[in-house]
Amino acid sequence: MIRLHVPHDLAAGVEIALDEGQSRYLAAVMRAKAGDELRVFNGRDGEWRAIVGQVGKRAVVLQLIDPARPQATGPDLDLVIALVKRGPLETIVEKAAELGARRVRPVITERTNADHTRVDRLRAIATEAAEQTGRLDVPEVLEPVKLERVIEGWNPGRRLLFCDEAGDARPVLETVTEGGPWAILIGPEGGFSPREREMLRALSFATPATLGPRILRADTAAISALTLWQAAVGDWRSWPQGQSPA
Amino acid sequence: MIRLHVPHDLAAGVEIALDEGQSRYLAAVMRAKAGDELRVFNGRDGEWRAIVGQVGKRAVVLQLIDPARPQATGPDLDLVIALVKRGPLETIVEKAAELGARRVRPVITERTNADHTRVDRLRAIATEAAEQTGRLDVPEVLEPVKLERVIEGWNPGRRLLFCDEAGDARPVLETVTEGGPWAILIGPEGGFSPREREMLRALSFATPATLGPRILRADTAAISALTLWQAAVGDWRSWPQGQSPA
Repeated sequence: MIRLHVPHDLAAGVEIALDEGQSRYLAAVMRAKAGDELRVFNGRDGEWRAIVGQVGKRAVVLQLIDPARPQATGPDLDLVIALVKRGPLETIVEKAAELGARRVRPVITERTNADHTRVDRLRAIATEAAEQTGRLDVPEVLEPVKLERVIEGWNPGRRLLFCDEAGDARPVLETVTEGGPWAILIGPEGGFSPREREMLRALSFATPATLGPRILRADTAAISALTLWQAAVGDWRSWPQGQSPA
Repeated sequence: MIRLHVPHDLAAGVEIALDEGQSRYLAAVMRAKAGDELRVFNGRDGEWRAIVGQVGKRAVVLQLIDPARPQATGPDLDLVIALVKRGPLETIVEKAAELGARRVRPVITERTNADHTRVDRLRAIATEAAEQTGRLDVPEVLEPVKLERVIEGWNPGRRLLFCDEAGDARPVLETVTEGGPWAILIGPEGGFSPREREMLRALSFATPATLGPRILRADTAAISALTLWQAAVGDWRSWPQGQSPA
């Protein structure tokens, strides 16, 4: 079942003229025909059934039928990720969408040797992954800023899980035992600097955790940490029938 | 610190003539010079300190100094993975090495639309990932066989965690509560067929488990399942100081 994220307000009877990119995708890649059914969502109005109306190569029109799922949002989990090379960074954004992160915040650390990234491209990847994974919102991808700046403006009501290779950090499942707003921070390939590690360890809202005895690449570390968080306090736990939050 | 996996027996004073590929890597990519220190392992004799001796573009010789770490092997965990496209399959093999799987068994399922893969290339990826992640063995990568054949020859002493999207499967952390030999089975992008699902659910050694409310790509599912297994009963748990198994 094709799912598309659209900016339009969704309501019964509304007609949606898709933009050129989505029109091309439907017409040329998926070979959609008038009458085909798909789903649309906008992050506000839930998921709607829609029918393909007119099909032009660059202009496809959809007609909304009825709501399929009410709006829902996953747990309040941010991923704060040091800029890494383009390939792993794009993987991390895709997987953050699949694993239910609400926000991705790229940061520049002392050992980061990139200082910018194509945020528009990361946002497109997040949107496509959200469409495919079945969620009803798209994770926000922020512009990269320095780690220090992010920490200066931190709301201490959000706990920070800081993945640290130092010997005394405890496993994530022993560290993350309470729900509420959280962020997971993953460092660059070269790790945090001693100064950064000291700064992070002094923060009242930050908790170091280890991801096992082997050295993980940044993309693996991000996926593993998001997984463990969801399994410990997020929406991967058991829910009584019909009460799943997603 | 450069680490190389070599086939040679390792002992004090031994000289190792690296093969052409590793010689080129050291000489041309890493620009190693005589006297540089690195580490070698073979999966049997632990990790050894070695010094670069002669450097030719296609022939580098190492001299073994002394043992750095005794041989250790991670938990007895197999990853049974339906053949998927080359990109995700290579990612899965790399991540299986990082996440401590002992064996990777590609399988052909009813909805698999590939029936072969370049196993030699997967083995090279597993070796490189093992070198970088710091483990002392390389995960074995087997030739692809049909899922039915694998199940027919299964040793029932090895439990099988079978990732299933069906509604009644319980979370991995509730399912994996005992150690010992395990395997994780990840299906193809199109999922298992109803017949396969029925076959798997009837096996005494198999347990279905869910990976949350969203649809995951095969590579994400593999990484998440390996992570949760390691955290639940593998080597990501807390170990008393000095007793870590890896």
